[in-house]
Amino acid sequence: MSTYNYPKFGAGLWHFANYIDRYAVDGYGPALSTIDQIMQAKQVEDLSYVDLPYPFTPGVSLSEVKDALQQAGLKAIGITPEIYLRKFSRGAFTNPDPRARAEAFTLMNEAAEVVREIGANYVKVWPGQDGWDYPFQVDHKNLWKLAVDGMRDLAGANPDVKFAIEYKPREPRVKMTWDSAARTLLGIDDIGLDNVGVLLDFGHALFAGESPADSAQLILDRGRLFGMDVNDNLRGWDDDLVVGTVHMTEIFEFFYVLKINNWDGVWQLDQFPFREDHIDAANLSIRFLKHIYRALDKLDIAALQAAQAEQNPLAAQRIVQNALLTSIQE
Amino acid sequence: MSTYNYPKFGAGLWHFANYIDRYAVDGYGPALSTIDQIMQAKQVEDLSYVDLPYPFTPGVSLSEVKDALQQAGLKAIGITPEIYLRKFSRGAFTNPDPRARAEAFTLMNEAAEVVREIGANYVKVWPGQDGWDYPFQVDHKNLWKLAVDGMRDLAGANPDVKFAIEYKPREPRVKMTWDSAARTLLGIDDIGLDNVGVLLDFGHALFAGESPADSAQLILDRGRLFGMDVNDNLRGWDDDLVVGTVHMTEIFEFFYVLKINNWDGVWQLDQFPFREDHIDAANLSIRFLKHIYRALDKLDIAALQAAQAEQNPLAAQRIVQNALLTSIQE
Amino acid sequence: MSTYNYPKFGAGLWHFANYIDRYAVDGYGPALSTIDQIMQAKQVEDLSYVDLPYPFTPGVSLSEVKDALQQAGLKAIGITPEIYLRKFSRGAFTNPDPRARAEAFTLMNEAAEVVREIGANYVKVWPGQDGWDYPFQVDHKNLWKLAVDGMRDLAGANPDVKFAIEYKPREPRVKMTWDSAARTLLGIDDIGLDNVGVLLDFGHALFAGESPADSAQLILDRGRLFGMDVNDNLRGWDDDLVVGTVHMTEIFEFFYVLKINNWDGVWQLDQFPFREDHIDAANLSIRFLKHIYRALDKLDIAALQAAQAEQNPLAAQRIVQNALLTSIQE
Amino acid sequence: MSTYNYPKFGAGLWHFANYIDRYAVDGYGPALSTIDQIMQAKQVEDLSYVDLPYPFTPGVSLSEVKDALQQAGLKAIGITPEIYLRKFSRGAFTNPDPRARAEAFTLMNEAAEVVREIGANYVKVWPGQDGWDYPFQVDHKNLWKLAVDGMRDLAGANPDVKFAIEYKPREPRVKMTWDSAARTLLGIDDIGLDNVGVLLDFGHALFAGESPADSAQLILDRGRLFGMDVNDNLRGWDDDLVVGTVHMTEIFEFFYVLKINNWDGVWQLDQFPFREDHIDAANLSIRFLKHIYRALDKLDIAALQAAQAEQNPLAAQRIVQNALLTSIQE
Repeated sequence: MSTYNYPKFGAGLWHFANYIDRYAVDGYGPALSTIDQIMQAKQVEDLSYVDLPYPFTPGVSLSEVKDALQQAGLKAIGITPEIYLRKFSRGAFTNPDPRARAEAFTLMNEAAEVVREIGANYVKVWPGQDGWDYPFQVDHKNLWKLAVDGMRDLAGANPDVKFAIEYKPREPRVKMTWDSAARTLLGIDDIGLDNVGVLLDFGHALFAGESPADSAQLILDRGRLFGMDVNDNLRGWDDDLVVGTVHMTEIFEFFYVLKINNWDGVWQLDQFPFREDHIDAANLSIRFLKHIYRALDKLDIAALQAAQAEQNPLAAQRIVQNALLTSIQE
Repeated sequence: MSTYNYPKFGAGLWHFANYIDRYAVDGYGPALSTIDQIMQAKQVEDLSYVDLPYPFTPGVSLSEVKDALQQAGLKAIGITPEIYLRKFSRGAFTNPDPRARAEAFTLMNEAAEVVREIGANYVKVWPGQDGWDYPFQVDHKNLWKLAVDGMRDLAGANPDVKFAIEYKPREPRVKMTWDSAARTLLGIDDIGLDNVGVLLDFGHALFAGESPADSAQLILDRGRLFGMDVNDNLRGWDDDLVVGTVHMTEIFEFFYVLKINNWDGVWQLDQFPFREDHIDAANLSIRFLKHIYRALDKLDIAALQAAQAEQNPLAAQRIVQNALLTSIQE
Repeated sequence: MSTYNYPKFGAGLWHFANYIDRYAVDGYGPALSTIDQIMQAKQVEDLSYVDLPYPFTPGVSLSEVKDALQQAGLKAIGITPEIYLRKFSRGAFTNPDPRARAEAFTLMNEAAEVVREIGANYVKVWPGQDGWDYPFQVDHKNLWKLAVDGMRDLAGANPDVKFAIEYKPREPRVKMTWDSAARTLLGIDDIGLDNVGVLLDFGHALFAGESPADSAQLILDRGRLFGMDVNDNLRGWDDDLVVGTVHMTEIFEFFYVLKINNWDGVWQLDQFPFREDHIDAANLSIRFLKHIYRALDKLDIAALQAAQAEQNPLAAQRIVQNALLTSIQE
Repeated sequence: MSTYNYPKFGAGLWHFANYIDRYAVDGYGPALSTIDQIMQAKQVEDLSYVDLPYPFTPGVSLSEVKDALQQAGLKAIGITPEIYLRKFSRGAFTNPDPRARAEAFTLMNEAAEVVREIGANYVKVWPGQDGWDYPFQVDHKNLWKLAVDGMRDLAGANPDVKFAIEYKPREPRVKMTWDSAARTLLGIDDIGLDNVGVLLDFGHALFAGESPADSAQLILDRGRLFGMDVNDNLRGWDDDLVVGTVHMTEIFEFFYVLKINNWDGVWQLDQFPFREDHIDAANLSIRFLKHIYRALDKLDIAALQAAQAEQNPLAAQRIVQNALLTSIQE
């Protein structure tokens, strides 16, 4: 029987939705309401938090959501305003039309209000439509200014609320403005406010060609790691696969960096199980994450740090494999 | 005034649809019927052919489509059965459920019947859901057998109809079974029927890490180039951008190979102008393609072939730039 | 104490060389002779085979190599003619100069003779300089014909020797002619001889966007898997890292496919430990491969095949993780 | 006859060297001395500047270099210390061995002295060996600190000399520390000195998944664009191909951004013509760059800016194609 003091686990509520894409335009399953999704999330063992897209599905009120969360034993960690729907398809902060920008601002302000009312940690800002598709499409100086100014206005208007920018290289735009850890930190410097930080997605960092562990360290060193989530992919796209199915070593390194920096937030899932059972996908993920947690406990950190001081990858990997693949020492 | 004898231009009818994706789940614009889309296509200058997804949108009959095409001055070049909707989301030919495979077969047979009735050139087979998402998900031997057997059954049951497989590395599956020119030709060898060939998409070849010109040559050498379409991307995804906006030289090389092989089919567009005016996107594309056509006329093919015999890229590029960028010799 | 009947392990002899690249033009260490390298290989625990580049380093004779191998307790599995040195920098089989092609043929014939004399399994043909660098540089039809004809001539002239083509997408050419599993099999069909097959490099398959397990199955199904080697990379380049340091699950799937097909050849390393201790790199690799071998023994293959019959990735991954990460079931 | 007031053109002197790589270990041609390379550069039409690797080849003195440059009608724009040779193969600034770091510092200080003596614009710092190869190899916090502190020490010790960091995602390290425009700017902020800036390489930006035009704007907005060079590639590697052979539109956008920001530095080449005539490669490049310069003159900038204000890619591309492909309006 486990005696481990595991971290809290969470998931984007969309983990329990059905999806649609440009080919399966009738969706991978029937549409589910926010409440339906919460009831699915309830069935996952060991899930404590969800990140909620906002607005909720039509006809669902905030009080209903609060009730459903309570009934499901779940808390809201973040609220994600849907600044990527049709009206923002040419951008939220960076939309060329000032009316669309104003609408995006309004929606994000509402999300901040929901954060207050529901007691969540942050508004998650994922500006997937902010960017460009073609060479020569935009004035890059102006685009970046719109992105930075928009975030500053939003965060400045809500100084009591945290805003966590989730960067990604691309999709749905061919190129997203907030595309990498470094660029996001550069923008945060330009914004100049304490309540703007980063939601670091493991898969987005991989897709961006980063070492997710390195990105975590860089963001932590500037005090901006407001949240994180995990998943997996083949490095060429944001596949949002179940965590641990491809990159075991790098997810281990990611959590190792969080541990040595004493980061003790929620371990969240951001996965899109298009064709899979959603509850089973979450359970398999958490089973794997618990293995990672225990492996961190077995890891000889002093020896690893000695190997890293020499930048000796063979010594480091031997130590890591001993912890991750317990039976390798047979 | 132009005296050029331009090729016929065509487009996938979806060029004139509105799109949806996993984020903009309310779509980039209102849904349009098959007839609406044909009426949009009519407005493009110099468009002669369309490739029609099948089934048509709800309530639209074949005779209505035929009438609309006639009214628009358009012909059908291909019929594309939608073997990537919800019921085939776990695969068409390679679905693990034999009932879903049978349904896919039925739908593709119907598409063959529409080809006959509408006088199109081929059924385009785009098995975007055939493949896998995770390591260890499938028995690769069995998956490939299902893919090949399914195509053989379909083509064998319709010996009077051509079937053009459109390969792509991935999307919506993380990995598609028919992923490259070479693998598709290998499968066609295994199928062993004359009425199975390739629909070569320029952007898919780029995305697959191929030289589209080389892929065209390889397919032509085996007598299997049943059709082609063009677009553009940044090589990392099937962006379906407007042709000529990124890869001018490689699209020129692609059409050069078609020309020296006397391939005289329709120059088709496969583009998804998510956020752009669809008619303007088509017009800009055709304007560019006409420039390519004229540049081929200006190209000193004998000199180019001499440079290629020496594999001299500098000499070759100089000749190519002289034709493509006319004013470079100022 | 281990009671496992492990496979034989091997390595490309270059694993024990020092390297050079376009920046560190003075090399990552002093040059080592063929004999020096064999003496290093001797120090690796559990190494039985080496693949030998040919010609040997200056002044080293075949009989000296044979003696050194015997002294080291090693056998030659393959001979790799260096058809990528300066004189072949514009191609071996596909060089535009027929004299260079003739020289390449001569060198490869010599390699075949060394295979006979040393009792190796095959000539490994790695035509890294065969291909192109620029759009429009080559006549693709002619390039492919040169590649195929050259291999046919070579194998036809040496019907008693096996020739294993090692494909890779690129490097040193921007694009290699033998770039993927499917294209190589297509070429082998065109060659039409039984003594031409494939040396499947795990990392090259990853780099080519393939599932290495799928590539193995495809090649096995045509009876052409003459050899294989392993390493690791980040999918974007042929990094030749130590096996198991990045892609644990996919290397496991690769060996799983070999096992269920009863492939019982040598498990070879093709690694370039530029900055690492070469012997330690080999030992760490073999330690990891033994873990894989034992994990295959623990794998519930019947349950996995049942999951694969349903194409259920969650069930499959659970079974796989149980075998690979033994302590995950705690 | 041309009446254009073209910019000055330059090239890294290595454009005229012969290369070596990990396969063609005997090199793509005989080694050439610094003086030999200058004499080759002299033969290029319209070349005014070179960037000189330091130390010069064995036996060549600074005064000989100065004489040769004068004789060739060339000036030095930058000095590039070779902090990527064997002794720095485990890193220059980030080497785990403090003695190696001290040696790197000494070499770069010498390069600063050469900049003063030869009247060049900057020391170009290209730390290609600073980074890591394996997950878990390094302590990311420490690695970044070494990189930043090393640059600060160097620039602080030479306040009269400019230092231009040339970032690249990778090669020869699997991952370089200074990997992108944004991260480099972040590091420059941390360094806090005015004499540290960026050498922006067009191909490195493409390889990093950036829009080179956007990167230029971002760096210009912070006043850090100390130099730039151009080439081309297929986005997946730093191929250092001849400029204009693949990405015509994006190189045009890059120079457009430089123009509207009134950046008036030298247009430099950073190309590795492994298998090509080096002088012809430079001439072809400059011919293309002059075309770009003239196309900028033809570009309807007011109309383009209006299109960009609407983020209308079709309007923008039409305007761009009119300028780049003059005869498209036929």
